[in-house]
Amino acid sequence: MSIESDIAPLDEAAMAAARARLDRLTKPPGSLGRLERLVEQLAGIIGSPTPRIERPAIVVFAGDHDVTAQGVSAYPSDVTAQMVANFVGGGAAINVLARAAGAELVVVDVGVAGPEVRPSGGTRLVQARVRSGTRDMTVEPAMHRDDALAAIGIGRDVVGELIAGGCDVVAIGEMGIGNTTAASALVAALTGRHPAEVTGRGTGLEEDAVRRKVEVINSAIERHRPGPEDPVGALAAVGGLEIAALVGAMLAASEARVPVILDGFITGAAALVGVAIAPNLGPRLIASHRSTEPGHRIVLDQLGLEPLLDLELRLGEGSGAALALPIIRAAALLLSEMATFDSAGVSGPSEAR
Amino acid sequence: MSIESDIAPLDEAAMAAARARLDRLTKPPGSLGRLERLVEQLAGIIGSPTPRIERPAIVVFAGDHDVTAQGVSAYPSDVTAQMVANFVGGGAAINVLARAAGAELVVVDVGVAGPEVRPSGGTRLVQARVRSGTRDMTVEPAMHRDDALAAIGIGRDVVGELIAGGCDVVAIGEMGIGNTTAASALVAALTGRHPAEVTGRGTGLEEDAVRRKVEVINSAIERHRPGPEDPVGALAAVGGLEIAALVGAMLAASEARVPVILDGFITGAAALVGVAIAPNLGPRLIASHRSTEPGHRIVLDQLGLEPLLDLELRLGEGSGAALALPIIRAAALLLSEMATFDSAGVSGPSEAR
Repeated sequence: MSIESDIAPLDEAAMAAARARLDRLTKPPGSLGRLERLVEQLAGIIGSPTPRIERPAIVVFAGDHDVTAQGVSAYPSDVTAQMVANFVGGGAAINVLARAAGAELVVVDVGVAGPEVRPSGGTRLVQARVRSGTRDMTVEPAMHRDDALAAIGIGRDVVGELIAGGCDVVAIGEMGIGNTTAASALVAALTGRHPAEVTGRGTGLEEDAVRRKVEVINSAIERHRPGPEDPVGALAAVGGLEIAALVGAMLAASEARVPVILDGFITGAAALVGVAIAPNLGPRLIASHRSTEPGHRIVLDQLGLEPLLDLELRLGEGSGAALALPIIRAAALLLSEMATFDSAGVSGPSEAR
Repeated sequence: MSIESDIAPLDEAAMAAARARLDRLTKPPGSLGRLERLVEQLAGIIGSPTPRIERPAIVVFAGDHDVTAQGVSAYPSDVTAQMVANFVGGGAAINVLARAAGAELVVVDVGVAGPEVRPSGGTRLVQARVRSGTRDMTVEPAMHRDDALAAIGIGRDVVGELIAGGCDVVAIGEMGIGNTTAASALVAALTGRHPAEVTGRGTGLEEDAVRRKVEVINSAIERHRPGPEDPVGALAAVGGLEIAALVGAMLAASEARVPVILDGFITGAAALVGVAIAPNLGPRLIASHRSTEPGHRIVLDQLGLEPLLDLELRLGEGSGAALALPIIRAAALLLSEMATFDSAGVSGPSEAR
């Protein structure tokens, strides 16, 4: 079984109209730099010459990884569930950043190990565990193909429901101790790069441990031989449940012409899977930031995306996406709300420039 | 007559307390990257281990420059007054960005030429014109020393009043056709760089016109020989009224331990003047972004500041400062509102990392 996804190309007419409007606004042409390209992209994604971003949601998918048994993370696996509880309790970075950005936050347990965290009336928690963590990819595939498809379905469903409720931009993030290992393995598999090029310190490994992590990833890739010709197979072999759900989330949003804001390296790895499934997904993705994880640069280059921020973040949770939200919203507002040279009676450039 | 300014060094104890708290928050140490250094700086500026930013104001100073007679700008001088009217009417980029950031916007006419714009109940406009534009720096000093001091005083007064009213962070911007010429001249004077190194396209000059702009700046510098030993003299010789007011604004805010958010190249040039007057000002400045103006990189290096954003902006008005405001506010909230490992029951790093 494979995945069907019907994603339209960007709306060229809306982009041209946005471009023309940008040049009539009371500012020197091009003076908003990167924001002008962002506004054009938003117009193309949404299919409107004056795109609005008013109801942002941040969705954080959480899952565990048995490959942590190989010593690939600075933190014990328990931290995934503990952080889900922290999200529910409102004390994590993403809680603060979602509040600051005026965004709804939804946390989805798509594959955490250990006892389920109970919803507690604070942050919305969706319990939709496909299984309790993935298996150790150095020994066997991380999950069955059906588990990967089920997790993709959960990402789709959660985002579909948010959009039905009025959400008009989706920022995505993740939590999963060990998931930079899964993401690095996916990136190596989908780009053909050697694991050493796309593997980094994660939450804070020392140099020796990074070398060990590269060996772990290399052995998993040699065992399963995942590749871009079967993106769901790659997800199943070396991916993660939360990564699969991220793929579903971006497919669902993009099918509905809702912009997707990527966070860092893990969401970028998921985007590579998504683009291998549906090539029209790529131009609909907005890169919020460039993380310090060395593979992220390679991912962004492969996706052809230029990040909005470069703040040396390496936290995950959707934190970079949340920090970029106000800039994205402001860019859209500039297009809608600024006066034009005509309407404001402002002179254009002199003849003799 | 010179300037007195009593600015305290950063509060080292508050910075150490903020640093210690950052490492107890539920995130890998250092994983918030640049934001962690920002939070430390905010703690040091404000003198609190948990700095809050709740009442931002954006102050835009406007002035004209008779050096535009030398063909140094892509736009006619009239545009300064027209844009002040646009600010008052609510249609400029900074109006949109101030609303998006939840910041109060104040526009100050400290030296626009032509008829005064009338306040109209929209954006707050302070009419405090020292004189109608500066004189042509290639022929005579741009203004008298007393005019420079008066404009500094206006910047001080406006910001002092905002702070007395509860404003706890001040973002600064400017409007003035021709003011990249004045700023480039000041930067050359205060850093010893050749004008060709610190002069750029401004609002959109072609290459030939940039060469002409360099010659204009060079001739003004050879005529007046401004230097860092007399920063007010340099302001008077080759600066601008709005640039002088920016200096006053940052001195007043910093004396009151209120953070100052710089915008782009012009505010950076003003900061060089400010630091020459009061060296303790420097560490209290926050660089919002790096503009495309080539001299801005030199200014930021000289000030020892690392910009938060790099969005290829070249608009002025405080636009970059306004875009950075939500990030600065969010960074402060992270320190105050995130749970600690202890309070949230989250495990720290494993032994064997």
